[in-house]
Amino acid sequence: MADRAPRPLSRRSVLTRGAGAVVGGGLLGGAAGYAGRGILDDDGAAPDWRTVADSRVVGAATEPFHGPHQAGITTPPQAHGAFIGFDLATGATRGEIQGVLRAWSQDAARLTSGRGGLADLQPELARDPARLTVTIGLGPGLFDAVRMPERRPAWLRQLPAFPQIDQLEDRWSGGDLLLQICADDPLVVSHAARTLASGVRGVAEQKWAQRGFRKAVGTDPTGRTQRNLFGQIDGTENPRPDDVDYDQVVFSDGRSADGQVQRWMRGGSSLVLRRIRMTMDTWEEIDRTSRELSVGRRIDTGAPLTGTHEHDPADFDAVDDVGLPVIPPESHMARARQRHRGEAMLRRPYNFDDPPEPGKISNSGLIFTAYQADPVRTYIPVQQRLAEQDALNTWTVPIGSAVFALPPGAPEGGYVGQGLFEG
Amino acid sequence: MADRAPRPLSRRSVLTRGAGAVVGGGLLGGAAGYAGRGILDDDGAAPDWRTVADSRVVGAATEPFHGPHQAGITTPPQAHGAFIGFDLATGATRGEIQGVLRAWSQDAARLTSGRGGLADLQPELARDPARLTVTIGLGPGLFDAVRMPERRPAWLRQLPAFPQIDQLEDRWSGGDLLLQICADDPLVVSHAARTLASGVRGVAEQKWAQRGFRKAVGTDPTGRTQRNLFGQIDGTENPRPDDVDYDQVVFSDGRSADGQVQRWMRGGSSLVLRRIRMTMDTWEEIDRTSRELSVGRRIDTGAPLTGTHEHDPADFDAVDDVGLPVIPPESHMARARQRHRGEAMLRRPYNFDDPPEPGKISNSGLIFTAYQADPVRTYIPVQQRLAEQDALNTWTVPIGSAVFALPPGAPEGGYVGQGLFEG
Repeated sequence: MADRAPRPLSRRSVLTRGAGAVVGGGLLGGAAGYAGRGILDDDGAAPDWRTVADSRVVGAATEPFHGPHQAGITTPPQAHGAFIGFDLATGATRGEIQGVLRAWSQDAARLTSGRGGLADLQPELARDPARLTVTIGLGPGLFDAVRMPERRPAWLRQLPAFPQIDQLEDRWSGGDLLLQICADDPLVVSHAARTLASGVRGVAEQKWAQRGFRKAVGTDPTGRTQRNLFGQIDGTENPRPDDVDYDQVVFSDGRSADGQVQRWMRGGSSLVLRRIRMTMDTWEEIDRTSRELSVGRRIDTGAPLTGTHEHDPADFDAVDDVGLPVIPPESHMARARQRHRGEAMLRRPYNFDDPPEPGKISNSGLIFTAYQADPVRTYIPVQQRLAEQDALNTWTVPIGSAVFALPPGAPEGGYVGQGLFEG
Repeated sequence: MADRAPRPLSRRSVLTRGAGAVVGGGLLGGAAGYAGRGILDDDGAAPDWRTVADSRVVGAATEPFHGPHQAGITTPPQAHGAFIGFDLATGATRGEIQGVLRAWSQDAARLTSGRGGLADLQPELARDPARLTVTIGLGPGLFDAVRMPERRPAWLRQLPAFPQIDQLEDRWSGGDLLLQICADDPLVVSHAARTLASGVRGVAEQKWAQRGFRKAVGTDPTGRTQRNLFGQIDGTENPRPDDVDYDQVVFSDGRSADGQVQRWMRGGSSLVLRRIRMTMDTWEEIDRTSRELSVGRRIDTGAPLTGTHEHDPADFDAVDDVGLPVIPPESHMARARQRHRGEAMLRRPYNFDDPPEPGKISNSGLIFTAYQADPVRTYIPVQQRLAEQDALNTWTVPIGSAVFALPPGAPEGGYVGQGLFEG
């Protein structure tokens, strides 16, 4: 049996395989991606109604990887998401870092269309991509590593400290590179994360990984904005695809607030990622009215306390019969509301509910994500107001923080971040 | 605003509320549970095709809580599962422990039918139960706490040590009580776990909590047995509902292997829960052939190496052209296969892929579960063989272990475990 003993397979190298490999065409397109795919097992096994009926719309659905913008930003949020931060190895060269971006882009194009990665030993796990998206981000430190600090967008830096609220841990913070991997199937997320992260070791070392979830596909019949673990409807004020300035809010034209222009970032975006612990134990000690006053909205409908429907405009001047504001000025809603349209940002959060640390009984919260053209203009002023005062701060603690530039999407044959190194 | 400040609400007590409360009827029944439920938002918001189309079969589907057996054992596995172990507080009385079981049963009946728990402050999170099941288990220590050691089934004890493989951690092991909570929606699992676990503090203290996932509903068009994170088709040899001895394999008639009879356990079952770390890093160093030889099955189809379809019987005597066994005798399949029908057990595993510990890059594996009438007769001899030799041991490490009695199901108005205290 000696000749059958498991033997190491030489690992693929991002340095040797990248340039020669070609990303094939044949991407399955959008919701039509399932058409023509066989749904019957070649074993003739009898699939039950659930797997057959839904696989046509859930498992086989695809999101295109290539395009003017990266997928995973304005993509309707998938049920599961992983966020992985990497630090570049000391001495990693520009060529090696380009190799990482190229390898990730090539594998992402394959995985998102239901094929295994180029060196994938378990491509069966990639077969039903369930709207998989892979979004690649560049952290502030990358620009020094590639010796192109002048190309770093002015807004790409770690956030200022919010000492009133922050209890940041290094194990959830920072990073030179980001992978955001989202799909409607948690196994697909695991496999894609593993395939992409393990292929670049030696150049990019995983610093942290966090996973979260939203409601499963098909479990909310209302189409209403999702609830977080507090039961709170979260995301009502998001910009919407039919807003006339939607693209301007989310995507960069290359310009920063200070007038600097980075042409390579046109069509890109930025991600502010905050890991926010929610202290369920103390939240559960307050009654429903107190919760609604803390949020500024009703729990059942998500309506502002001055309205009846979720999307009703809030009346921050309304007072009750004893003259007190109906929406408390310290409520989350009152503090968070946009002071002007320049503060708009797209949020796409995921809940986490991880095994508690030893001695604790909960480990829950929100992986908060905000996407916008320029976070210095949008996220930071809003967060500063919330750090100063927000009734919800009693039950929420930021424990992780990171900021990434999300380059524009790659055309077929190109790779995400390519523009940074050209022109 | 002082009168509006959040104020503590007195927590419900399992000691005062249990006896008086009545579990209402009106459980939504099985797959018909969604019939007649409105699927349009009263806000008139336009739900998209995904939420409307699938909610009828995914979100609104229910599994009955009451019945001769507990749900969550032979229930077709839901996509998400949480397992929570509790230790009883020192000095907890029999009456208090009965109160816990009664409270859990009452809330489980409500939650599994889409209603909030009795003291639920966020019942909206319970609305679409997505086949939620709550399964209650009793650990060995409970019988001493209620001063009824003579009622402990003979097989209910911690497993023997498997020193060749075990690296057990107390933080994943043992427990006097278990909640197993499964649903096709991860948010439903979180809310139910939180509602049930937090309501019993002071009597039952959470010791550990672990969560896992299988493929999302509708993401596998084949209906094939699921794959784990190794890409391995896992669970082929499970007993099937149409086996003539299915109920005998899974459910207890009250008898233990030693002839002891516990009438209160008739219709109950047992759970062996093992947390198994899978070392993805080294698994990924071996090639596909080595993997198949380690498992004894093909990766693509799950067929035994001597067959072509997943459910083909294996030929352990077949040799290849140089006279070596086609299925290596040290392969997982060869070591795990039932020596006789008495070893049959029902497995219902969940994958985990948690945030890595600081300094590590992966934290993945399997929450292995085996359900059977008597684990001393089934699980232990199989596990002893595997501990002695199993090619997969190279890449798997048991880090948690627990055994629970799963009492029979409760009738309406009754509670799980009630029979233990009667007759």
